[in-house]
Amino acid sequence: MKNFEFSVPTSVYFGSGEVNKVKDLAPNLGKKALLLAAAETMRNLGYLSKVESLLKKAGISVVISDDVAPNPRDKDINRQTELFLEEKCDFTVGLGGGSAMDSAKAVAFLAAQGGGTIRDYLAGGDKADLSLPGIKGAFPIMVITTTAGTGSETTPWWVITNTDDHEKPGTGNDSTCAAYAIVDPDLMVSLPESVTRSTGIDVLFHAMEAYIANIATPFTDILAREAIRLVLENLGKVLENGNDTEARSRMAWANTLAGIAIGEGKSGTVGIHAMGHSIGGQTDAPHGLTMASVSLPFMRKTCLSDISRYADVTRMLGFAEEGMSDKELAKMSPEALEKILVRFGCNIRMSDLGVEESMIEAMTDSVFKTMAPVLECSLMELNREDVIRLYKEAL
Amino acid sequence: MKNFEFSVPTSVYFGSGEVNKVKDLAPNLGKKALLLAAAETMRNLGYLSKVESLLKKAGISVVISDDVAPNPRDKDINRQTELFLEEKCDFTVGLGGGSAMDSAKAVAFLAAQGGGTIRDYLAGGDKADLSLPGIKGAFPIMVITTTAGTGSETTPWWVITNTDDHEKPGTGNDSTCAAYAIVDPDLMVSLPESVTRSTGIDVLFHAMEAYIANIATPFTDILAREAIRLVLENLGKVLENGNDTEARSRMAWANTLAGIAIGEGKSGTVGIHAMGHSIGGQTDAPHGLTMASVSLPFMRKTCLSDISRYADVTRMLGFAEEGMSDKELAKMSPEALEKILVRFGCNIRMSDLGVEESMIEAMTDSVFKTMAPVLECSLMELNREDVIRLYKEAL
Repeated sequence: MKNFEFSVPTSVYFGSGEVNKVKDLAPNLGKKALLLAAAETMRNLGYLSKVESLLKKAGISVVISDDVAPNPRDKDINRQTELFLEEKCDFTVGLGGGSAMDSAKAVAFLAAQGGGTIRDYLAGGDKADLSLPGIKGAFPIMVITTTAGTGSETTPWWVITNTDDHEKPGTGNDSTCAAYAIVDPDLMVSLPESVTRSTGIDVLFHAMEAYIANIATPFTDILAREAIRLVLENLGKVLENGNDTEARSRMAWANTLAGIAIGEGKSGTVGIHAMGHSIGGQTDAPHGLTMASVSLPFMRKTCLSDISRYADVTRMLGFAEEGMSDKELAKMSPEALEKILVRFGCNIRMSDLGVEESMIEAMTDSVFKTMAPVLECSLMELNREDVIRLYKEAL
Repeated sequence: MKNFEFSVPTSVYFGSGEVNKVKDLAPNLGKKALLLAAAETMRNLGYLSKVESLLKKAGISVVISDDVAPNPRDKDINRQTELFLEEKCDFTVGLGGGSAMDSAKAVAFLAAQGGGTIRDYLAGGDKADLSLPGIKGAFPIMVITTTAGTGSETTPWWVITNTDDHEKPGTGNDSTCAAYAIVDPDLMVSLPESVTRSTGIDVLFHAMEAYIANIATPFTDILAREAIRLVLENLGKVLENGNDTEARSRMAWANTLAGIAIGEGKSGTVGIHAMGHSIGGQTDAPHGLTMASVSLPFMRKTCLSDISRYADVTRMLGFAEEGMSDKELAKMSPEALEKILVRFGCNIRMSDLGVEESMIEAMTDSVFKTMAPVLECSLMELNREDVIRLYKEAL
């Protein structure tokens, strides 16, 4: 067995009605919260006022920033951090999908540095190495996830769009793991089908990529296997009937498991996420679909780099037939994934997401500038020419 | 899905040579360590001097208490805590099996209360409820496990023998989870066969009991399943050849997984552990074998209390045959377990461990006095008469 390390520092509260735990848990984190959410969804659904009221019942003062954008931008984080500091908040609460949770992490981090600009701490910035001495640990963070996708509730990672360079770098350190994550499937029932699809397929990519990452461990493997099993069993059900609460719960659980799998080690995902992020920076396309668009060329290129692991992918996706060798199974993994993408309505091309050929150079630059550590977790080394070729194939 | 909570607060460092991480990790915990171990094993094998030297290289002052007993006693803990306080230590290091690790937890806890007698904090004591206000969080704890059994490295639990009442109560709270757990299979190669057997079968009980506990969760289930699979695959190999490092590693990993499974929630194990502990209090018998001796009567009594769970036990133990109903499988679970105990040389009776019929009354008292929360995790309610009957059957 290989050597590895792990822990799950976030206390996860999972299940129907768990959102009410906000009242019990918040007083452990501080006295004044900056509550981050997207107005158009969280306010309209009544979730924002519900969480605000739970915090207030716990005796917490609440400052609301309901201006979280679908892909949170550097400028938003800088402004929200100013508000956090002006109002002398002492913890953040992120309510929503990955955008709100990542904003809660980024603001808690930047506020601990005394404010400034988040860009300094992202790839390409002066202080992009968050393990440098002098970097302070983030303020405490609570997250309440309303989607089954992104896994942000159990990872240290946060992804912020660089608005000048159209890049979407991800970063994080131990201090940006949430202290508490609430995963309440009741909050997911109202998700529109399109968001259920794009976040649900993201869970599959987290789990599958965690399994074919060169930093996979026996711990991440068991979580990834179970997450894949659950997505295959339940994503179709929630797409067909968003009110199927049992299937919603199982997707939420798959997402939490996959989040833990990619939260361990230095990245957890591989080239698919590295290339997908750079599409998101250019187009603002839904995160999960960006991965779907590049995944098949990536699988075709890499599937023989580790025959045993890619053979397992075909097995886990349910396409192994008796008598097939590991090599045959590994070779078949792109086709197996394609069938799954078709099944869940996610078999799209980059051009469907608004990508044009002229963007490929900038996207490739961005992969190597902002997602190099993720790309390097792939089982095959990919250079600039490889990435350009994969993007062209995915167009 | 049911509601549940979890986290893995301990950072686990797993693998060959990981003991060397002591040097990097210890400075995060403090400046002066009380290092607890059993002289006759740890000193003779050279592990004690190795860890002492790693701590010193990290600039840590080291006080050694190499008088850990196989089942640590209240008096030992009181004396070791006095030493900790006199020497102004600021963290503990437990090196060995469950005894050394539990001692490290108990001393770190009692020292934080300013010393005194550990008996006050065990079942029956004035302050047995460790969640009471005024109870302080333990000093930081590091554990280095040298056995694949007990799971103590990833649980909050510690078990101390009450020398007056011959009881073996287990307790613990969030603060008695180790900050760091080092699981280095190289340290397990020299384990004698008898200890490999009694600790190895303990892993199976942890995992199986976690699965048939009424507080089992989807998180503990996946860990328990994998731990059972690994024990069945590897315990025979390490009994046959203690130098099989790959099998030693897999048993160590099974133990860590099962430890996490029983560390979640308020107990994790069930009546088998509740009854086993009370044998240990009377006889000082090896922990794992005490469970083996009572497990079959317990399974026969409870196997129809939750047909689906007990049917899964038969499946996980590898004895399911095509066409059998869940009820048939559940009914078969005691027989399946018996075959496994026979396979690993653990099919023993209480009398083999030195228990006499005259002890059964006191053992039963002890179950209800010191292990009631564990007993109550069983899927069937067991009263005093039930426990006496099970003990008699196991004699």
